[in-house]
Amino acid sequence: MNGIDIIKKKRDGKRLSKEEIDFFICEMTRGTIADYQIAAFLMAVYLNDIDEEETFLLTDAMKRSGEIIDLSGIEGIKVDKHSTGGVGDKTTLIAGPIAAACGVPVPKMSGRGLGMTGGTVDKLESIPGFKVSLTMEEFEDRVNETGIAITGQTAQVAKADKILYALRDVTGTVENTGLIASSIMSKKLASGSDAIVLDVKCGCGAFMKSEEEAGRLAEAMVKIGKCAGKRMIALITDMEQPLGRAVGNSLEVAEAIETLKGHGPGDITELSVTLAGAMIAAGGKAETHQEGIYKAEKAVENGKALEKMRELIEGQKGDPAVIYDSGVFPKAGVEENIRFTEDMAAGKADCDTYYVNRLHAGLIGEAVSMTGAGRQKKEDDVDLAAGIYLHKKEGETVKLGEILATVYAHDEEKLMKGKKLYMEAVKIGGRPVKRPLIIGKAGDL
Amino acid sequence: MNGIDIIKKKRDGKRLSKEEIDFFICEMTRGTIADYQIAAFLMAVYLNDIDEEETFLLTDAMKRSGEIIDLSGIEGIKVDKHSTGGVGDKTTLIAGPIAAACGVPVPKMSGRGLGMTGGTVDKLESIPGFKVSLTMEEFEDRVNETGIAITGQTAQVAKADKILYALRDVTGTVENTGLIASSIMSKKLASGSDAIVLDVKCGCGAFMKSEEEAGRLAEAMVKIGKCAGKRMIALITDMEQPLGRAVGNSLEVAEAIETLKGHGPGDITELSVTLAGAMIAAGGKAETHQEGIYKAEKAVENGKALEKMRELIEGQKGDPAVIYDSGVFPKAGVEENIRFTEDMAAGKADCDTYYVNRLHAGLIGEAVSMTGAGRQKKEDDVDLAAGIYLHKKEGETVKLGEILATVYAHDEEKLMKGKKLYMEAVKIGGRPVKRPLIIGKAGDL
Repeated sequence: MNGIDIIKKKRDGKRLSKEEIDFFICEMTRGTIADYQIAAFLMAVYLNDIDEEETFLLTDAMKRSGEIIDLSGIEGIKVDKHSTGGVGDKTTLIAGPIAAACGVPVPKMSGRGLGMTGGTVDKLESIPGFKVSLTMEEFEDRVNETGIAITGQTAQVAKADKILYALRDVTGTVENTGLIASSIMSKKLASGSDAIVLDVKCGCGAFMKSEEEAGRLAEAMVKIGKCAGKRMIALITDMEQPLGRAVGNSLEVAEAIETLKGHGPGDITELSVTLAGAMIAAGGKAETHQEGIYKAEKAVENGKALEKMRELIEGQKGDPAVIYDSGVFPKAGVEENIRFTEDMAAGKADCDTYYVNRLHAGLIGEAVSMTGAGRQKKEDDVDLAAGIYLHKKEGETVKLGEILATVYAHDEEKLMKGKKLYMEAVKIGGRPVKRPLIIGKAGDL
Repeated sequence: MNGIDIIKKKRDGKRLSKEEIDFFICEMTRGTIADYQIAAFLMAVYLNDIDEEETFLLTDAMKRSGEIIDLSGIEGIKVDKHSTGGVGDKTTLIAGPIAAACGVPVPKMSGRGLGMTGGTVDKLESIPGFKVSLTMEEFEDRVNETGIAITGQTAQVAKADKILYALRDVTGTVENTGLIASSIMSKKLASGSDAIVLDVKCGCGAFMKSEEEAGRLAEAMVKIGKCAGKRMIALITDMEQPLGRAVGNSLEVAEAIETLKGHGPGDITELSVTLAGAMIAAGGKAETHQEGIYKAEKAVENGKALEKMRELIEGQKGDPAVIYDSGVFPKAGVEENIRFTEDMAAGKADCDTYYVNRLHAGLIGEAVSMTGAGRQKKEDDVDLAAGIYLHKKEGETVKLGEILATVYAHDEEKLMKGKKLYMEAVKIGGRPVKRPLIIGKAGDL
């Protein structure tokens, strides 16, 4: 068996066997298959596709290419939650504490963000003192004690994924369902939870642009997880406009806390509670998803979820004052309100009531990245205070002179760049628009 | 414009523009597009194909990626001849001198062989003293004086082809008509001749296994050449069994000389005269291919072609004694005759007359390579005296005890390896078989 024969087999549209996939991934990880051969293989997979079984075998081989986390020291049905990534998505910081408050152990390993805003780990770093790198022992102890812990992902998990991911990015082979599904699921399967709740984002601010693609990815990941013996739930959710009003690291943590207090924006509250409900059901603490959602709502109402957030922060050496005093967060150098002006209304029919018709999530994401909240390269620092707060979201009315958004940045230059892109993202019109937030579901529901 | 966008465009099955192809090849040659990106591009081209125009544009960009030979110092219509490579193919050494004897200038740049036997340049080195590396000035002078010169190909010609060729070999992207055609033709177009005669080999001893593939390649190369304003003639010829009786470097030179004397094997004589006829017609020294063939036959009969060979050898400092004394060639360390034994006849119907039914060119090629005549790696030396002489070819009768072949090698070990593979290549039976040598034609005929 050799790498070239495996490339040729996939090139010719044939199915690869377990032995062939194992060989390729193992040798690739050992470094005996060259980058250019991996690239040719990826393009062959992209164009000729891999079927369900090959996708599972690939995921399994990638999982075994690195460290496999043993969470057997944590009692109960451990539930992981993963989002494919969207603009303003801080649901982990809300659904995690809610599920933990309902008795579900949540050992969450998160990455740093690359692109529009930071990842969950970056966001948590805006809480003074919060320790995002736990040893495995600390991690287990924290989950056993508090019911939830969030730590950075170890570089040793699914090593093969790192090789493939880096090459896919530079060879035009990113957008393939089998490759995306195996990339995400190899890390999830190596992370040792018993159940996984997936939030597959769909729209202009997400990786998957169409409902069809997102549905296909959700189904593929659910199948892989089930093959591996995991309980799997996937939601397909809207990412045409940002989630919530806050986009940017500390802004999002503050909004997560507000949501846990019961004062969050409608969309982020709805999605967080729906995801938490799924986590509670997957963790065996509710019979149905609906019952899980009910329990999640209760945990917000009675303050137990917020209390769990406080325990999470304290348990990882963060300053719990952030819960009652947003002044504890890092401060932006400059900020500016963007108001709805006559200029923006020009050309529209004269009417009493204007609506935000469009708030393009992709462009808002870029705008926020411009403010300094995102990372262009792995080595970049993120500005924890930068971002955009959306006072008006799609479907909401706006009057002349009202504030549409506030932009936060380190300096005027970054602020202006962010503002410029925000202006491209927003469309004002005479009629309200509305889209469903939760588009579909897959898996054990 | 960037490399990834071009990869994605071809990945999505779209046509690439001249600007895109030029950019990719130029940046690739400069080293700013990484090997893994080139590999992904090659796989996308392999699977989605490039059309006629893209193939021409790719060839043209590759041609411009290196040195372009200026042969304007040579008078007349300069004719190049190229074979896609086969076992026992020494036609350049015969058709070249014939065409030159008929007044066609033949400035031939040849490569060294990689694989079964050496290339034309390796073969010529078996003539003591023969100088295969001429400066461009010497090369022009020799063609102007003698009408023919043969020199090694400069590494500076079609630099992009070297990069693509090396990667195709290790990424499973060799067998694509557009890539093969552009690889060959970029070098030919950079070599400065006015007309090109192509011999596209077809069969188990060639690159193209089927007549269909060979025909497609011939058509593609003819079209590229015509787009570039060249006179183009392509023959599609059989490579199921080796060409001639001699396979191995010095053995082939000796057979070429015998053929120029009018005593060559039937197949090699027929093909050489047909190719020479095409060169004579392409060079404007005959009205039709048929007239060219007639003139070629005459040049052999009247000794002018042999005299031209002598001039070629002398002009490049080789020892012309090889023409009358094959003892001048390097000697093999060991040799062995393989005879037709009762063992080999076993299981066949008892008959008076046996025939060679099959002489598998691919296996004979490997057998000869085992004797030491070929090169596995670019750095390897070839054994100029090693090889196999085929006393019996397909369709010929053989009696018990008669010699089928003689194997020449440096030592017993290599001889035995060659012999073993020869035995696999030969099949003896009760009925004669016959295949046409010249299968098809394309181009200006």
